[in-house]
Order: sequence, then C-alpha cells, then structure tokens
Amino acid sequence: MPFRRLGPSGLRVPLFSLGGWLTLGGTVKGDPVKDIIKVAFENGINMFDTAEAYAKGNSEKEMGRVLKELGIRRSDVVISTKLFWGLRNGPNDGGLSRKHIIEGTKEALERLQMDYVDIIFAHRPDNTVPIEETVRAFNYVIEKGWAFYWATSEWSAREIEEAYHVADMLNLIPPIAEQCKHHMFHRTRAESEYAPLYAKYDIGTTVFSALAGGILTGKYNGGNIPTDSRFENHKDFFKNTIAGFQTEEGKSQLTKVEKLTELAEKELNCKVSHLALAWIAKKPYTSTVILGASKPEQVIDNLKAIEVIPKLTPEIEEKIERILDNAPEAETTFGRPPLDKFRRALY
Amino acid sequence: MPFRRLGPSGLRVPLFSLGGWLTLGGTVKGDPVKDIIKVAFENGINMFDTAEAYAKGNSEKEMGRVLKELGIRRSDVVISTKLFWGLRNGPNDGGLSRKHIIEGTKEALERLQMDYVDIIFAHRPDNTVPIEETVRAFNYVIEKGWAFYWATSEWSAREIEEAYHVADMLNLIPPIAEQCKHHMFHRTRAESEYAPLYAKYDIGTTVFSALAGGILTGKYNGGNIPTDSRFENHKDFFKNTIAGFQTEEGKSQLTKVEKLTELAEKELNCKVSHLALAWIAKKPYTSTVILGASKPEQVIDNLKAIEVIPKLTPEIEEKIERILDNAPEAETTFGRPPLDKFRRALY
Amino acid sequence: MPFRRLGPSGLRVPLFSLGGWLTLGGTVKGDPVKDIIKVAFENGINMFDTAEAYAKGNSEKEMGRVLKELGIRRSDVVISTKLFWGLRNGPNDGGLSRKHIIEGTKEALERLQMDYVDIIFAHRPDNTVPIEETVRAFNYVIEKGWAFYWATSEWSAREIEEAYHVADMLNLIPPIAEQCKHHMFHRTRAESEYAPLYAKYDIGTTVFSALAGGILTGKYNGGNIPTDSRFENHKDFFKNTIAGFQTEEGKSQLTKVEKLTELAEKELNCKVSHLALAWIAKKPYTSTVILGASKPEQVIDNLKAIEVIPKLTPEIEEKIERILDNAPEAETTFGRPPLDKFRRALY
Amino acid sequence: MPFRRLGPSGLRVPLFSLGGWLTLGGTVKGDPVKDIIKVAFENGINMFDTAEAYAKGNSEKEMGRVLKELGIRRSDVVISTKLFWGLRNGPNDGGLSRKHIIEGTKEALERLQMDYVDIIFAHRPDNTVPIEETVRAFNYVIEKGWAFYWATSEWSAREIEEAYHVADMLNLIPPIAEQCKHHMFHRTRAESEYAPLYAKYDIGTTVFSALAGGILTGKYNGGNIPTDSRFENHKDFFKNTIAGFQTEEGKSQLTKVEKLTELAEKELNCKVSHLALAWIAKKPYTSTVILGASKPEQVIDNLKAIEVIPKLTPEIEEKIERILDNAPEAETTFGRPPLDKFRRALY
Repeated sequence: MPFRRLGPSGLRVPLFSLGGWLTLGGTVKGDPVKDIIKVAFENGINMFDTAEAYAKGNSEKEMGRVLKELGIRRSDVVISTKLFWGLRNGPNDGGLSRKHIIEGTKEALERLQMDYVDIIFAHRPDNTVPIEETVRAFNYVIEKGWAFYWATSEWSAREIEEAYHVADMLNLIPPIAEQCKHHMFHRTRAESEYAPLYAKYDIGTTVFSALAGGILTGKYNGGNIPTDSRFENHKDFFKNTIAGFQTEEGKSQLTKVEKLTELAEKELNCKVSHLALAWIAKKPYTSTVILGASKPEQVIDNLKAIEVIPKLTPEIEEKIERILDNAPEAETTFGRPPLDKFRRALY
Repeated sequence: MPFRRLGPSGLRVPLFSLGGWLTLGGTVKGDPVKDIIKVAFENGINMFDTAEAYAKGNSEKEMGRVLKELGIRRSDVVISTKLFWGLRNGPNDGGLSRKHIIEGTKEALERLQMDYVDIIFAHRPDNTVPIEETVRAFNYVIEKGWAFYWATSEWSAREIEEAYHVADMLNLIPPIAEQCKHHMFHRTRAESEYAPLYAKYDIGTTVFSALAGGILTGKYNGGNIPTDSRFENHKDFFKNTIAGFQTEEGKSQLTKVEKLTELAEKELNCKVSHLALAWIAKKPYTSTVILGASKPEQVIDNLKAIEVIPKLTPEIEEKIERILDNAPEAETTFGRPPLDKFRRALY
Repeated sequence: MPFRRLGPSGLRVPLFSLGGWLTLGGTVKGDPVKDIIKVAFENGINMFDTAEAYAKGNSEKEMGRVLKELGIRRSDVVISTKLFWGLRNGPNDGGLSRKHIIEGTKEALERLQMDYVDIIFAHRPDNTVPIEETVRAFNYVIEKGWAFYWATSEWSAREIEEAYHVADMLNLIPPIAEQCKHHMFHRTRAESEYAPLYAKYDIGTTVFSALAGGILTGKYNGGNIPTDSRFENHKDFFKNTIAGFQTEEGKSQLTKVEKLTELAEKELNCKVSHLALAWIAKKPYTSTVILGASKPEQVIDNLKAIEVIPKLTPEIEEKIERILDNAPEAETTFGRPPLDKFRRALY
Repeated sequence: MPFRRLGPSGLRVPLFSLGGWLTLGGTVKGDPVKDIIKVAFENGINMFDTAEAYAKGNSEKEMGRVLKELGIRRSDVVISTKLFWGLRNGPNDGGLSRKHIIEGTKEALERLQMDYVDIIFAHRPDNTVPIEETVRAFNYVIEKGWAFYWATSEWSAREIEEAYHVADMLNLIPPIAEQCKHHMFHRTRAESEYAPLYAKYDIGTTVFSALAGGILTGKYNGGNIPTDSRFENHKDFFKNTIAGFQTEEGKSQLTKVEKLTELAEKELNCKVSHLALAWIAKKPYTSTVILGASKPEQVIDNLKAIEVIPKLTPEIEEKIERILDNAPEAETTFGRPPLDKFRRALY
C-alpha cells in the first residue's frame, strides 16, 4: 500500500482508505463489518473514515466496536470522523458552533470507544457561525487531545481561504485537507476551484464517491439498476441520480463509461472501476481515496487499482480526457503569461 | 419557540428564556421549581439563566438539582450563570480578579452539578481589576472547558469596547453578549449607548426586567402593591421603586401603562405584559428575553407574547412611541449625512 | 444626486458616476468630452472613472485635460483609475507586480495631470504575482499620497478574501470596493458570490455595464444593430455579443427586455433603461453605477433613473423577478436555520 | 508661565494658551490680531490654537500672517489646528475620511503659511467613517511631517478608547489629548467620563470655554448682556445660552457666580474669572487652558490666574464645591473597595 502525507501535515495516510458511509453500521451490521475491516487492515488499509451522521451514529459505534474486538493497536490506525449534521433536532444539535463541536466530539468519541480520533472533519461549512468560532473550537478539540488534526468537507475555496485567514491571524491550526466528491463526472471543484489552495497551502483531498456511486463500475451500463447495488439499496436517497440516467447528460455518461471500459479492458487489462480509482489516486493533490464496501471481496478488488496507477501514461491520460471531454478550464491569467509547474512565468 | 443566535456566536438561544433571579431558589423552592422548569422546557424554553449571587447560591443549586431530576440531556439546554458578587465577605470573594473568576466558576459548577455552563457572565464590570486580567481569566475558563462563551452584564459601552480592545490585542475570545436591564421605561443603554457595539461587534442582549419588575403587567396600576407581588415579597429590595410610585415620574409611568393596556386589549387582543415582552423581543439586537416566574402558569402566559410580535406593525410601534414619549436620541453625526440601515451614507 | 459611502470607507460617491470606457478619449474626443463632463458635473456627478487601458491612455489624458480646462477644484471630485492591462507589450508592462503598480500609477497621474487619484483599481486579478506583493504595492501607492484608497475589479470572492487575509496579517489597507459587471442578465457574482464579503467587510460595488452594453435600453430589440450604437461602433469587440442575439439565450433576453419595457412604460412611466439603472442602484451593496455616454443628453437622460428608485416597491421588484426568472440561488446553509437580515438565526 | 506635557506626549505646552475661535479672523481682524498675539507671546503664551472652521478659514489665515509678520521662529511656538467642519458643502468637504483629512490638512497649512502644525485635532468624532480609516489618515499626516501629534475634540470616552484600540492593533500613533469644554457648570465629561482614560492612557485636556463663555467673569451677573460682550457680538450663536439665563438653572448659575465672586474677592484677592481659570488649570489632567481674547489687555488679565493656583488649598476647593454643588459622581465599583490614587485597593 502506498502512503502519502495528508496535505501539509506529517500524517501518512494510505492511498486507499475505508469509509463507513451508507454501509458500515447502515446496510451492513455485526460480524460482516468485522470481516470487511479485518480484510482491509490485513491488506494495508489502516485509515478508517466515519461521521456522526453515518447511519445515525451507528457507523461510529460499529467501527469502534470492531476495532476493539480485532485488538488493533490504536496507534496503528488513522481514524477520522466528522461533525455537522448532528443526531437530534434541537437548535444546537448540529452545525459548527463551539457548543456542537465540543459536545459532538465528546459524543463521537464515546460511540467510537476511543480517547481521540486522528482527524476531525467539519462535514459541511456553516455560514451561520462566524468562522473564528469554528476554527477556535476545532483547535480546542485538538488542544484537548481529542483529535490530532482538523479538516473540512465540501467547503468552497473561499471558505477554506477564510479558515486560513482566521487561523493565521490567531496563530491557530488550519485545516489540512478537504473531503470532497471527486470522480470523472464531477471535476470542477477538486481540479479547478481548489487549485490556488493546493499551490498556497498544500492541502490534500480525501476523496469520496470516486466511482460516482457505482456508475464507474459499469454496473449501471444500459441504465439498469441491479438488485443489491447501492442505488437499489438506497433508492430514495439516489432517486435523482437514478432519474438522471434517462437524461441526455445521463446517457452521455453511460456511453463514456462504456468507452472507458473498453480502454480499461483492452489497453490496461483491468476493470473500468480500477481505471477510475487509479485516475483519481494519481492526482498529485489526492491524499487518499475512500473506498466503500459491503463485502470483503470488494475491498480486495478495488485495491487492484494500485497496480493501474503506473500504467496511466501521458498517452493514456490523453485518451481518457478525449473520452471524458469535460476537463475544467484552467484559471485565466487575463493575458498575463501563466506560470509553469515550478511557478516560473514563461513569457 | 423562535431561536436566535446569541450575538456573534453560533449558539442558538430561545427568544424567551427562564431566569432564576429572586424566584428559583429564593421565594420558590423544592418541587415548585421543578414544575416551573418542566413546563418551561416542555414549552420550548431551553435556556436557563442563573448567577452565583441569586438566592445566595441556592438558585444554582435548585436549578442543577431539578435539571438532573428531570433527566434532561445536557446538550439540549443552554445554561448561563454569572460571577461578581460572591457569596462570602472576604477581600477576594467577588469581583473579576483571576482568583475569583476561577474559584467562583468551580464553585458554581459544583452547585449546578455540571461539568460546564454554556455562558458565563461578568455580573458587573470591575474597574478595580485591570481589564486584561479579567479577559484572560474568562478565556482560561473557556479553555478549561468550564464554559463555551463569556459575556458581560451592566457594562458601559466603553467597558465593552475595552474588553474587545484587550481581546483583539491578545487574540483572546471577546464577550458575545450583554445582560442588561431593558424595558419601556429604561431604554437609553440598550437602545442608544450600545448602538455602536451592535454595529461593530454584533453583540446581542439577554434582557432582564423586561416587565419593569411587574409595572408593565399593570398590576401596580393605581400605585397599589398587591400581596403576592414581587414588590410585596421583596419590599426591602424594591423600596426605592415602590416609593417612586408617588413621584411625578412614577405617576406618569403608571398613566402610560394604562394607555398601553388599552392599546394591547383593544388593538392587539392581548395583555399589556404580552405587548411589553413582544416589544423588547422584536428589537433586532435582543437575543433572548429572560422571564421570571413563581408559578408554571406565568411561564405559559408570558409565552403568548410570541404571537404578538408579528402584530407590532410600524403603525402600532408608532402608537407605542407616542404613548411612551421617551425614545432615546439617535447618536449625532455633527452634521455629516447619517448612514442608513445598510450603513450607506445618503447625502 | 444621492451619495453613498464607497464600501467601508468614508469616501462619499454619487449614486451615478461617469466612466470613460470606450467613449471618452476613444470614440469621443476633444470638445465633446468637455461638454459631457461639464454637463455631468453640473448635474451632480462628481465621480469620474477611467483606466490606463481605456483608449490606450487617451481616456485618462482627455479626462485630465478637461477637468483642468473646466477649472474644477480637485477636492470637489472623486477620480478613479485602474491598472493591469498596461500600454506596451514588454514582459513587465502590465499585471499587478510591484514594478507595474508603481510605474503604472506614476504614468497614469502624468496623463491625468494630477498629484493623486482618489481610488486606484486593480483592473483584474493577477494570479501570477503573489498577493502579498500586490497588496503591499497598492499600500505603497497610498502611503506615497498617489491614491487615497485601492479597490479591485473582476476579482473572485476567494481572491478578495485572500487580499483581506494578507492585509490583516501585515496591517495593510485592504481594498474597499469591487468594480464589477452587474446587470439584469449578469447577476451571480454581484448578487451571490460576493454576499459573504458584503456581510464581513462591507465592500461596495462600482458597477459597469448596468445597461448590458445597451441591450437594456431596448435599442437592440428585434436583434437589430442600429448605426451609431455601441455594438456597431465596436463591432469587433462585441462580435460575440452580437452573434449571441441569434442564440436561444439571446432571443430570450430580448423578449425579456420587451416585457420590461412594457412594465417600465405602463407602470412606472419611464424608459426601460431607467428601470434597469434604478434596479441596480437600489441594491444595498451598490455604491455607484458608472454611466457611459457619448453625448451630454445621454447623461441627463440616464439620471432620470434616480426618480425611479423609490418606485421600485416590493410588488414591482417581484414582477421584475418574474420576468427575469434568473435570480441566483441563495447560499445554502445545509439545513441550518439561515440568518435573517439582522444576522439572527430564526429556527 | 508654567509648562506641562501634553498628555502622554513629550510636547510641553503652556498652562494657558491662546485660541482663535470667534475672535481672531472673526470679530477681530488685521493689526489688533497682531497686537493680541504679540502680547500673548511676550507673556509666555507660545501655543496658538485654531481650526479650519474658525471664521471660515480666516482664523488660520490671520494667525499665519501675524506669526510671519512678527518674525517668530517656528520652533518657538506650538501651533494646533482642527479638521472636521470643512469650508465648502460638497459631500467630501468635511468629516474624518482619509480624503478630507489629507486634503483638509494641505489646505490648512496653506492658509497658515506653514509646513506643519504641532497638533492636528479631529474637531468632532465622525461615526460615519470607520475609526480605522481616521486613525490611519491622521498617522499619514504625521508621517508626511504635516503634524507632530494628533488629538480629538468632543469625542466620547468610548470613541477615544476605540481610537486606542485601532492604534494598538495597527501599531499607529494614538491621539494624545482631548480638546473639551470644561468649566464650573460643565463638568461630567472632563471630570468623570474621561477618568478611565486619564488612568489608562494619561491623555491630557486642552480646555475651551473655561469661563463658560463669559458667565464666569461675572459680567452677565443679573442676567445682563453688556454691549461688546461675546454673547452680544454673537447673539445668534448664543441665543440658547442667553435664553437660559431666565431659566431656573440659569438663575441658579448666576447666583453661584455671585458667591464665587465673593469668595474670590474676599478670600483670594482676585477676580472670579481668575478663580475659574485657576480651578480648571489646577486639575491634574488639564494640559492647557485656551484663552480667547479680543484685546491684548484681556490676555494679560487672564494670566493673573496663574498666581491663584497655589491659593486653591483643600479648604478653598471644599468651599468652591459647596457653592457649585454639582460634582459629578465618582464611578461606582459596585461594592468592590475602590482604589486609592496609587491604584492600590483599600479594603
């Protein structure tokens, strides 16, 4: 398993990690969770990602229980969780106020049966709370020893800049990573909007939905929803996505998946899902790609993507871009000669 | 129950909260306290305000006992207490020295049987202690996890500005609110003196005495002091107020209450007390109006004010102002064109 | 003429100002420029906006010459110019390096025959120069006395936040305004992207193209390009815009202009151009709307918009929105109760 | 002539200085101005105070002309002027924006025919301009060499605290003095409101109206307005003051002046005006008392107050207080033992 630093931090994270969204504690409970986590850990995945809101707290509970039962040493794993959505409906049960960040962290640690997590994420931005309060509260959590790092999820580039602004002014610890949706059909934010942040702050991304909810596995090719697929299991949650298959945009995506499948199978000798995962993992700012799994075999299969990464030559990448035809525009310099990758201006 | 942010913080507080001054732990003890708090909580009031000095520590004790007995989850309520007056007479038993703030907070938490309060107030300014010591000490209390926020009570605008000055210089957390007396006959400080602070720092007010100690319920109309009224129960404390009924000023106030009563009953179909509470609650800088109650029914009755707020149209407000005839003068701009509500100058 | 503060500054600017883009020094030269500026000044317009790039430096030259010839007292006017595009093609002739900002300012002042301008704008962001260098250089210009304030033009919200970040860290003066394109068919940036900046920093906008290059005067209705129109005079510059008339989007816009024309004439007794100008001017964050003019009569006609502003009642605004059907979405709070206009959260 | 430091600065100012309000350049012009200034200078008064608004710029002009004609060395005098009211009616002609502070200072120096003044005052607070802009602009004026110090006039204690807040944050020079009205019948601001500022920042006061516009000379005793008095010469400006003589408050003041006159003549062998001037001059925070004069003899007469100062024993001061019966209340400490003059707490 290759490891990367998580953004500007010294923390090493595995290029592929395991996430608890929808599956662990949700559709999958009990011993199968243990099997999945055991296999993941034995195959080099030592980072496990969860959130207070995943399966209404049960994702944290199951993950905590299993890690304890497996007897895995705490320092051998990287655990991340997230706060924002809350578990109850009171006026202070959620968001990024000092009250919820502190109360929420304590509750999450109890569910996880841990003294600390490695990373605590702000699961969404909360523009109803002054950013100073939020940055101070995450720093409090770190100073208390309840987390080693904090990070953001689905924040805009402006909001992350704002967090750095406050952290710099107050000598506080800024966020080190962004947990963002990033896949072949959802590219602008990770590839373009965050570009100045990669350059200035070296933040990393912890990517979710790298397989576009399964679209990039090819299993929805033709617009079918197989039984036992994520979309079938969570019909309600994904109803817009499913309906999207019938739109022009949706059909175009499925066609592209077919072409990518051909490319993967013929030229790279792998599944399209391996190609899709490797393509995200190869991005220099990707710190870790979070895998979801409802069976141990899925984890093992997904990890084959590691071997595909070196096969993504400039020529192959060029072919992928021609198929996708959706590369976000580079930031304009309004006619000023742009900088090369060493930040030199080439006139 | 409508909720508002408390000043510039992310904490949501109910528009009406329950205070423990004079009643809880004082004239009211034991099971009636439980009844009052239970009814309040069931009706959406999740903020309870007390102070070390209320009923010599008994207000905190009763409140803590009752919340425990009722089994209310800590994160579901907002608890505030205050330090300044102390409970004993030693030279360091009070004020805003680091010694009293830290020792006093610990003792208050013991009486409340809690690990932390949400907000800790400086119950008065202490100009015998350097402001730096006071701001540092409240930040210590917050960093210890004993409170989430700190605030002031009955500080002048200059003193609050001074606290912001020190907090800014030292990167410390400034106060987020002012607990001030504000009612139809006591307006200057909340409506005029603090105006620059609302604009600059967005501080909120947690209002006490919104009913002017009961004058605005109409029960003292004619200058009578009914048995079982607050003034009768605390004759000594209120002796100046009671004597005031006989002055020209006092008589004028009672006449105004009579006119307001007519307005409330005829045009708004409510009691004058509802009108008085709604009028304070509607002010944009009011974060919460603290209700006092010696019986559960009073809480329920007072909350009817919520329905009156939307009835306070510009026309009704104009009528109220004509009756009161005591609006504080707006801050002069010495001939410079004043700013409108968007802070734009219209010449 | 109503005056407003320019953003968070103490500078008062007229709600309508005169800009030199394309016309002054470009299509219009010599005495007609004097006539236009004279009429503008006599009608209360005391702010004149130009840029180094307008008519290749000739806009500044003509404006400076005319103000001198008219004998207008320097302190009676607000002069703004902009740097970025440069006038020559050398590697350092443009952008926001310290070199170009200082050299460019000196040259602009020479062309204007002035010791200082009131506001100097960064005509575009320059992401090939570290923001620190740019903020420092504009502060240098201010400390030299060559400008009283600096501002941005066409910067993203993230870039402006970045400028505030650096200014705060280094105790430098931040930009006070954004000169942005804002009209009924170009709304997202001014109305949505900048919203957090209005709230946090109170920046103002100095709006250009409020008439969408003339589309909102109705003169292109039916897709015709009249002789003597801006699009005819600058065919090459506007070729994309003109081609756009034939697209679905373009046709839809012209239809909306027709409906707005009817609304203006029948319900407000004014031209559609007055309606369009008043609608921008009424936005609380608009500091000034920059008018373009190739004849004195145009200035006088445009100023009739001032009388239309108070006629834009909530009902009329609602009708306009129904015709436009393009209001930018409000920023999401991800389910947290949003703040009202007093920044209070109402749950 | 005794000299004092001006507040926390190193500048020495004479205990009595000469002001140009109403007289110099106003009711008195030409050679008499020269006579007054000459006599003042020969008698040790080396500080001359004026303002852009005094006599619409003519006070500065006359003062500048005379000092030049008298050949007084620049370094031998302390010159102060003030900005705020402006001389014209344009939207930017006044207030404390950067534009007016810089343009106004330049114009004032031209009228004074000087390269710099010693002190530049903000003649009023301008709450329509962010305090940061104002503090920065006065610092610019100082950095340019156009003034050595800046100060405030008629600012509230909160506003001065705010200026210190900004100056501290930005490492800028704060104001060193307050030019305030202070006389036996106008005491609260100087003696009570500013008390915390004297203690924290050691600011000084440059007092105007120490004789209450002449009331404390005894010349209006009985309510008469003598011809050639200030009130007669400026009837319109002082119409409220004159009308005030007929009120209960006004009569009470005149009675007090009569008693003070008796005290001055019988016990101190001086005029009541000398007593009134000495009483202000003796206050520890008074830096200079600004005299007005329309004749040279007045200057000489007023300076006799210097000899009265040491005669103001605790016993005499006690008698004065008994006559005045208007001492502002000391700041409350809410029951905390107050500090003595060495800032020690006496329990």
